[in-house]
Amino acid sequence: MANFDLMRQLATESGGKIILLVMDGLGGLPLEVDGPTELEAAVTPNLDRLAREGSTGLSIPIARGIEPGSGPGHLALFGYDPLTYEIGRGALEAAGIGLEVRVGDVAARGNFCTVDENGVIVDRRAGRIPTEKGAEACATLQEIELPGVEMIVREVKEHRFVLLLRGEGLSPALMDTDPGKTGVAPFPARPVPEAADDPAAQHTAELVNEFLAQAREKLRGHHPANMVTLRGFATDPALPQFKDVYKLTAACVAVYPMYKGVSRLIGMDIIETTAHDEPLDEFNRVAATWDSHDFVFVHIKYTDSRGEDGKFDAKVAVIEQVDAALPALLDLNPDVLIVTGDHSTPAKLRSHSFHPVPTLIWAPATHMRDNVTGFGERQCMGGALGQFPATDLMPLALAHARRLKRFGA
Amino acid sequence: MANFDLMRQLATESGGKIILLVMDGLGGLPLEVDGPTELEAAVTPNLDRLAREGSTGLSIPIARGIEPGSGPGHLALFGYDPLTYEIGRGALEAAGIGLEVRVGDVAARGNFCTVDENGVIVDRRAGRIPTEKGAEACATLQEIELPGVEMIVREVKEHRFVLLLRGEGLSPALMDTDPGKTGVAPFPARPVPEAADDPAAQHTAELVNEFLAQAREKLRGHHPANMVTLRGFATDPALPQFKDVYKLTAACVAVYPMYKGVSRLIGMDIIETTAHDEPLDEFNRVAATWDSHDFVFVHIKYTDSRGEDGKFDAKVAVIEQVDAALPALLDLNPDVLIVTGDHSTPAKLRSHSFHPVPTLIWAPATHMRDNVTGFGERQCMGGALGQFPATDLMPLALAHARRLKRFGA
Repeated sequence: MANFDLMRQLATESGGKIILLVMDGLGGLPLEVDGPTELEAAVTPNLDRLAREGSTGLSIPIARGIEPGSGPGHLALFGYDPLTYEIGRGALEAAGIGLEVRVGDVAARGNFCTVDENGVIVDRRAGRIPTEKGAEACATLQEIELPGVEMIVREVKEHRFVLLLRGEGLSPALMDTDPGKTGVAPFPARPVPEAADDPAAQHTAELVNEFLAQAREKLRGHHPANMVTLRGFATDPALPQFKDVYKLTAACVAVYPMYKGVSRLIGMDIIETTAHDEPLDEFNRVAATWDSHDFVFVHIKYTDSRGEDGKFDAKVAVIEQVDAALPALLDLNPDVLIVTGDHSTPAKLRSHSFHPVPTLIWAPATHMRDNVTGFGERQCMGGALGQFPATDLMPLALAHARRLKRFGA
Repeated sequence: MANFDLMRQLATESGGKIILLVMDGLGGLPLEVDGPTELEAAVTPNLDRLAREGSTGLSIPIARGIEPGSGPGHLALFGYDPLTYEIGRGALEAAGIGLEVRVGDVAARGNFCTVDENGVIVDRRAGRIPTEKGAEACATLQEIELPGVEMIVREVKEHRFVLLLRGEGLSPALMDTDPGKTGVAPFPARPVPEAADDPAAQHTAELVNEFLAQAREKLRGHHPANMVTLRGFATDPALPQFKDVYKLTAACVAVYPMYKGVSRLIGMDIIETTAHDEPLDEFNRVAATWDSHDFVFVHIKYTDSRGEDGKFDAKVAVIEQVDAALPALLDLNPDVLIVTGDHSTPAKLRSHSFHPVPTLIWAPATHMRDNVTGFGERQCMGGALGQFPATDLMPLALAHARRLKRFGA
């Protein structure tokens, strides 16, 4: 990564302090040809002020036309090219719940599911059992013993858990056992085609199949969570560390495990939150950790959730809630405040989408004010930042914070 | 090409249907400092409506400052980086007339020319002999026999023909025999410097020189077409196939052989046209094949031709003719309609040029309406697409047609 080489070369230990506010799925679309987007419809006096005073533009998360998943979308915001750096689902899920995945470990995302007497899946999520029930089932699975390896089974949320294997000679090169649909039995574990002859992959598949056989026995009476599927086998992605690349002490304030997971994998400190945190609660947590960090990433989930639900007005309301809470961040006098999203989630499409994401950089000492007078998709089209790859955002953040040395004499 | 890897990974078999309307050499320049470009001067109510409702921008065919040939310009529109994928002129010419170039074949573009009694070229195009005369001369050349290889000589148009050699141990690494000027004799065939010691190139050069010697004898009485020159020696470019990369069944509606050639080389179905087809005729051919294709590329030649002629008003008239015919495409209710050019051909310059090309994407389910209210160079500067590499157009087309899976979890 040319970007990372440059950052390592130029980043300094001192300089201004940065807040990166990510509203997940921020970008939207008009419901009608002449209508506003969600962000345009929202009444956002604080964001509009920042857009008016600072620089705006549109961020392209992965590449033009590509709809990002949340993992790649965040990697890009942190400056990690998502086409170069991939995080397997198992590693991401484990990191999200604070379960360390070491080099050589194999982690998988697990689902409790319901199978009938023939072993055929009738519910892929076991009726979304409560988290307490999931934790009980995990405790049952934790009794399984596998020859020669350590095994950890840990609840994530509801029907979701993580399986981690630790030992010598393991490989994550396995196919999912989750068939992705009902009406069929889970697949046995098998090496991916490219690793068909790899002894480590064969050995790991045998261990996983032994786990699955014992799980079937142990969960027999646990209807509806009477079986499991596994997917996203992965090991430590060995990502470059944020601190090494950017020389920033960084913290993550996020409610959902996955965003904590990405942040933990690149070495951010994870600030404790609760599932009930509102935007203002999260901003207060930023304030509480502000003295001890150069960089705080704060993540708002519900812009994306309401977009996925197709609820235009509810997404507008979340944006307005964030705007109303914004003074709590501004009171910290950050040198640089960036507001953006990891991708678009237009309520019109009820889905992530490929559309570029409205972005503002507010940094009173260094920003170039453009002619934009409010924060919205159409307004950002005319902004100082133009359209730019999301991976350029971190260099811009450091530059605005005066944390990059000159390149060359 | 990362783009192709991504497309192969993400493209789905189902989704919306796409029309790509290419007005060759669409972009222009004002004749006077305060004047309009050709596209701005044209009265185009239909294109203006599409620009107003959809997204606009400026496409960069190859790279900033680079003036594209028609082959590279079209490769870029189809998502093939023209700096990576090259089509030798001989292969392009052969494909244009439906002559298959197989792996190992060597094809060259031929010109009939006029030489004097000393073998010196006095007319590089043999007075642009009529196509019937060219075909007669090709029939004469077809009588030539070369040791150990099959030889095909086929008329293209007027003084232009294709020579194709098929056999073992051939190489296209030969210099042009066409000196590119009058007053000198054609060059003998020679390997290119890098292949000077390559036995295949040496062997092919010998065969071609044998062909040239026999051609000189056989054409002696055929004044003005009494000799030939050859250039653009090439073999099968082995381009990735459109269907494999994008999972689209695609068709080409074009009048000129070269555009059919590019399309054929990437595996599009070539729809029959006549040399007299007007834009509306071509659009009606799109309609006739619409049920059996996901993607139709339709090519308008005369915007470029009038630009090359330096005829500003005539280019305006072609654009207006296309606009007037446009309802024939809109009546098909495409999910995505893209209007662009392969490069600019300003009448002011009487030539292709490097200027970025006005582009619009109209896709009612997914497009972001920008603030642009008409289709023109200056208007597109403020559009939602910004300035973008032409190779991003296909990913955008597929995204707007909802034919791409999400990247990452």
